[in-house]
Amino acid sequence: MEDGFCICIVGLGLMGGSLALALRASDDDRSAAGLWPRESAASAWRSARIVAVTRNQQALAAARTANAIDDGSGDLAEGVSAADVIVLATPVRTIVRMLAEVGQHARPGALVLDLGSTKSAVCAAMAGLPDGLQPVGGHPMCGKETAGFAAAEAGLFRNRPFVLCPLPRTQPCALQRAESLARAVGGRPIVLDPATHDRAVAGISHLPYALAVALVRTVEAAADPVAWSLASSGFRDTSRLAASDADMMLDILFTNREAVVGWLDACTGQLAMVRDALAAGDDTTLRACLAGAQTRRAGLTV
Amino acid sequence: MEDGFCICIVGLGLMGGSLALALRASDDDRSAAGLWPRESAASAWRSARIVAVTRNQQALAAARTANAIDDGSGDLAEGVSAADVIVLATPVRTIVRMLAEVGQHARPGALVLDLGSTKSAVCAAMAGLPDGLQPVGGHPMCGKETAGFAAAEAGLFRNRPFVLCPLPRTQPCALQRAESLARAVGGRPIVLDPATHDRAVAGISHLPYALAVALVRTVEAAADPVAWSLASSGFRDTSRLAASDADMMLDILFTNREAVVGWLDACTGQLAMVRDALAAGDDTTLRACLAGAQTRRAGLTV
Repeated sequence: MEDGFCICIVGLGLMGGSLALALRASDDDRSAAGLWPRESAASAWRSARIVAVTRNQQALAAARTANAIDDGSGDLAEGVSAADVIVLATPVRTIVRMLAEVGQHARPGALVLDLGSTKSAVCAAMAGLPDGLQPVGGHPMCGKETAGFAAAEAGLFRNRPFVLCPLPRTQPCALQRAESLARAVGGRPIVLDPATHDRAVAGISHLPYALAVALVRTVEAAADPVAWSLASSGFRDTSRLAASDADMMLDILFTNREAVVGWLDACTGQLAMVRDALAAGDDTTLRACLAGAQTRRAGLTV
Repeated sequence: MEDGFCICIVGLGLMGGSLALALRASDDDRSAAGLWPRESAASAWRSARIVAVTRNQQALAAARTANAIDDGSGDLAEGVSAADVIVLATPVRTIVRMLAEVGQHARPGALVLDLGSTKSAVCAAMAGLPDGLQPVGGHPMCGKETAGFAAAEAGLFRNRPFVLCPLPRTQPCALQRAESLARAVGGRPIVLDPATHDRAVAGISHLPYALAVALVRTVEAAADPVAWSLASSGFRDTSRLAASDADMMLDILFTNREAVVGWLDACTGQLAMVRDALAAGDDTTLRACLAGAQTRRAGLTV
């Protein structure tokens, strides 16, 4: 990468913060921490200047202290205007809203990447960017139920799929640059179209979240103090996603509404099958149901 | 405890095996491993003779090698006839079936404790034991999605609630003995009536299991290879319980049918609320739903 190459990260939460930390980790740091294999792409990205755009002064100060960024700004136009790569790492509906302003101020040729959890709405908005810009939708398949720069870590993307959704107009060299960035932070780039991505993550991410929310709300509504006192690792893990940031999740659900509703209906059907077999005392059906799920889940490697 | 005191553990799976290992761990082992505070009750139990009843020769051999048991038998009558404490650690419906035979062969005054996950059916069957026996239903609130002696560990019960359900006829000294046993393996004894226990665990254990099964079956039915390839920690944790032993879970669900169906119906209602708010684009309702669950779940300490 040429001298003075500049990355602008908009949003310094878990995703944006972790990206900055991962780009900045020295080869020795990575090697010593066993974070991910040394790769030539990583050191090239490491020399880039990183500018963060956020109104969160606490996150800015923490990121400076961690040496994760070179500069910070509360002004989107100022931040993106000098950048070769712009990474939008805010909640999804904020990304969609910001794209028009990004388009007005980004320099021609800049790669515009986002880290939002749904891709159809973002890629549709990216299609409205001026011709000279190079849009790529992005979604690193990792996360925690804790949010903010305080939760960020350099190893967040390590060995995780990093979905990339180029637009028809995106030049091959821009997609290659996005893939190089994904690898530099330890991820495994996977190119998908936005609809395929959104349908898949609705099933393996947004549906589990909705189930966790329903579970917590059900136990809460029962107002049974004995139940809470007996909660163990099973309840803890099944309900974990319910602690996710509600504002972030609201954006995700509303920008993937059709797919999520479809999966919710399918899952409600499966739940009804379990319920009805149990209520009817149908040992054979219920056994087949549970045994099939056991085999499938035991074979999962994540 | 007097010399020659004998404990018979029926079933050497995760629960029975862990109980034997926990009883056998020396005070020094416990202290060194930081397993649980040294307690006078523990060393008294440690000198007891432990006999296992199981037809699983592999588990018997492994338990002997681990020095977790003194003797083993494939014959229930032989195993229980010389025991001062009988611990039934098989799937629930097997416990219920075995109790008549246990009653025929147990020596007068023996404590009959079980480790099954539901208590109403077990305690109802325990009521049929001969007058001289001392029945206490038991349920340690711990577990894993892996089964068998190979998964057993001395620390399984550490700091976890250990529910005890004495019958009206159970003598106070028998309940005290059961509490002492629960403490000796590191647990926190909690006395509950069977119905209260079963209603509570249906919500915080059996409902999460059913949700995990429905989740796995839903993704399986969709036959979307992209979905499986993108599955991350969220899916992994939410679906973990689905890997539980199907036979064990079948017994649990069928001996707690009414309570589980009730919780499933309540949860289906909560899920429908999330689904309908999302489908209708009702930002306000959905936000309240998600934010409430976030607050409640973030406050959970398990």
